[in-house]
Amino acid sequence: MPPRTPATVETKTKQIYSLLREQIFQGVYAAGVKLPSTRDLANEFGVSRALIVDVFEQLIAEGYLEGRQGSGSYVVDLGGTKRQFYSQLQDIDSSGEGTVAEPPARFQGIDFRPSFPALEHIPFKKWKETAIAAYTNTHSGDFGYDDDPAGNWQLRTNICQVLLHTKGIRCLPSQVIITAGATQAIAMLSRLLLKPGDAVAIEDPNATFIQHIFESTGADIIPVPVDEHGLRVDDLPTHRSPKCVFVTPSHQFPLGSILSIGRRIQLIDYARQTGCYIIEDDYDSEFRYAGMPVHALRELDSERIVYIGTFSKNLFPALRIGYMVVPHELLDPLLRLKKLIDMHCPILPQITLARFITERHLEHHIARMKRIYSKRRKCLIAGLSNIFGNRVKISGDAAGLHLVAEMAESFCGSQVVAQLEELHIKVYPAERYTIVKGRYENQLIMGFGNVGEINILEGIKAIASVLRQC
Amino acid sequence: MPPRTPATVETKTKQIYSLLREQIFQGVYAAGVKLPSTRDLANEFGVSRALIVDVFEQLIAEGYLEGRQGSGSYVVDLGGTKRQFYSQLQDIDSSGEGTVAEPPARFQGIDFRPSFPALEHIPFKKWKETAIAAYTNTHSGDFGYDDDPAGNWQLRTNICQVLLHTKGIRCLPSQVIITAGATQAIAMLSRLLLKPGDAVAIEDPNATFIQHIFESTGADIIPVPVDEHGLRVDDLPTHRSPKCVFVTPSHQFPLGSILSIGRRIQLIDYARQTGCYIIEDDYDSEFRYAGMPVHALRELDSERIVYIGTFSKNLFPALRIGYMVVPHELLDPLLRLKKLIDMHCPILPQITLARFITERHLEHHIARMKRIYSKRRKCLIAGLSNIFGNRVKISGDAAGLHLVAEMAESFCGSQVVAQLEELHIKVYPAERYTIVKGRYENQLIMGFGNVGEINILEGIKAIASVLRQC
Repeated sequence: MPPRTPATVETKTKQIYSLLREQIFQGVYAAGVKLPSTRDLANEFGVSRALIVDVFEQLIAEGYLEGRQGSGSYVVDLGGTKRQFYSQLQDIDSSGEGTVAEPPARFQGIDFRPSFPALEHIPFKKWKETAIAAYTNTHSGDFGYDDDPAGNWQLRTNICQVLLHTKGIRCLPSQVIITAGATQAIAMLSRLLLKPGDAVAIEDPNATFIQHIFESTGADIIPVPVDEHGLRVDDLPTHRSPKCVFVTPSHQFPLGSILSIGRRIQLIDYARQTGCYIIEDDYDSEFRYAGMPVHALRELDSERIVYIGTFSKNLFPALRIGYMVVPHELLDPLLRLKKLIDMHCPILPQITLARFITERHLEHHIARMKRIYSKRRKCLIAGLSNIFGNRVKISGDAAGLHLVAEMAESFCGSQVVAQLEELHIKVYPAERYTIVKGRYENQLIMGFGNVGEINILEGIKAIASVLRQC
Repeated sequence: MPPRTPATVETKTKQIYSLLREQIFQGVYAAGVKLPSTRDLANEFGVSRALIVDVFEQLIAEGYLEGRQGSGSYVVDLGGTKRQFYSQLQDIDSSGEGTVAEPPARFQGIDFRPSFPALEHIPFKKWKETAIAAYTNTHSGDFGYDDDPAGNWQLRTNICQVLLHTKGIRCLPSQVIITAGATQAIAMLSRLLLKPGDAVAIEDPNATFIQHIFESTGADIIPVPVDEHGLRVDDLPTHRSPKCVFVTPSHQFPLGSILSIGRRIQLIDYARQTGCYIIEDDYDSEFRYAGMPVHALRELDSERIVYIGTFSKNLFPALRIGYMVVPHELLDPLLRLKKLIDMHCPILPQITLARFITERHLEHHIARMKRIYSKRRKCLIAGLSNIFGNRVKISGDAAGLHLVAEMAESFCGSQVVAQLEELHIKVYPAERYTIVKGRYENQLIMGFGNVGEINILEGIKAIASVLRQC
């Protein structure tokens, strides 16, 4: 006889448990009926009495049976609907019908997605080494809950140093909250600052998902136009005070302009007068190809501006780490909210990132990527000029991972997108980012972050051939 | 002469940039004034003309200067308030005053926190090895954004298999959404299902933070009492339909009872009749010390129940990975919401966890921890019995990482907590988890997950000495 492994015993227990449960559900053992003794059932099934006792105890614990001292085990009355529940147990769940049974396929092709980094140049090896070194230095407390919803202290300290150095922002680690990407920061702020019927002023055009976040609060969106000096501050609403103004001052998304110092001063004056907050989203401005990175709006005011940064563009999106530098007045409400929505961000990735910054790997990675992006940008500009000549005007290219190609003639965006998609090429007409339609019908937003030079040229040719037909 | 490194060049550029900016802010160069030529400034500062050109371009890009073709660079009018902004730039930010400048200290002592795992037994080495192996098998797409807000497909597939095996739940990966811990799942559901003025029925007592999440939506909390068979379903409101009912059927938190099969059927009937959803939070029931893990409520219904699980108790809290199994009707709204609040969870930890499950490390870890927790539980029960004799009644101890110690006499919870805190011992009176006060004034919820056996005994002695004084 083969030795009984714990596994087969468990299976036997489970089998008999399931059988008795089935018989109770189906009324073979009706409500109030006394079950056979454990000894009799043990003989019947050819198992030990201890095993049957285990099954009975489970059924009692779960409320199928009721044990009466010295008398035996009785079936509990489960009510009239019990039979239909048993059929549910037996069925393969049908609620999943119509849903995908396969993981969604990844897009393979040339994708001019703006503001998306070069995935094949992710500093994967250095990140892995850093993770290993970081893990080795953890202590058991790093695996529990973080009592501080704002996140890892060292990472917040490092962020402060980087911000002072590159953005002119003076802040303390206690003013920094680590978030699940910039998305969570914007979602938290919109939840805190906006109620249904409130107003929020946002740049038009903008990154569409940000508009969706604001809309989900029930607030009214007030689009404010943008020109070559950024948000047209003069066009901010005067008849109605928005609760906040959303801007991308270092590199307007998607048009690429820098908010001029004159307008910065004007915007902060507006916020001080109306009592609204300014949400400054600084998503990619460390990649600046002419001169130094532009200073943050936040350097000019610490009370009315929430500064949002992210590691999605300068490191990698899958990390889901962003942060915000928060005015004193908003700190406690935001920390309370962070605790309510997910307690805090995962700890090990934060420790790894803190070390990655301390050891200057991030700095080196950004310098390296700036060279790579600079080449891609030049290649894209040269390619567009070669093929379109003076029928294309390029702008918004001084920083970041995308530029604006303004064509001599308007085109139908959805038609161009559809035709290029058949060629496995994704393009992004400026109109898809606008609220007020019809002002940018001849413009494409072209990301060059994640497109190699050969693909850039191939993509431009395909775009040219499709545009000719439209 | 020492070679000029790029770093010193950058510093020089930055210095001259800052100086000119200061002079513009202070009116040394007033609005409309033409700046000296780049050649003159290069001579004055003893730097190359190219460097001054860089500085001018930066100041033009940022809107301080305006370049006029063939004529030179002119100072832009920044308005009357510009001087006050310059003082902000010079100041060490004072908005951080009164905030902590040091990371918060971690609690050192004996902490009977319920539902908290043994941090010193985290399978740290295996986790690290798995992470390294998982990283090695990634491809560049794993570093981008996940187009699917529900999370990693392999992890969701593994979760389905585990749920079928241990909880009787039949579901497809497409019905599973990975969340930032159970907290995020509950926060998402409460945001989706509850509006101000709606009602939500929750067990009383409960994990207080869950109550806070529901309260933050503006919904009315309807407390429903709990007894030794779990939620008293008969006490659910009949005059007013709640939008959802929150339950912990496998191991009521904190009292430890199992929701009996009779009440399970009754509860689902209630949900079907009133059209409400049931939120089933299954936080620690794999650690069951008698018999098999209790099946999930979700096995009986797939349309009205959202099942929530977490890896915080069976692996470690810092991971921040939980999940929910979602009825068909809620799937799309929840996926849209997940995209709006943080896009998706971090990818690398999900890939690591998927591999950790595939390679059966999680299963082995749970089995190992069950032995460790079983010992701690016995030690706690024996210690309580030895010291309190028949003046203590223990319950809720068949599963999980905590039990209920019911004392013969009531005590003042806050006083006991304060006195023990002085001895560096943290205890948790049942009353801190209640909505309706005064029903559990003689009970302590005692977590044994993260307390070693020596500390358990030391802690009990201290509790006894403090209770004697109260």
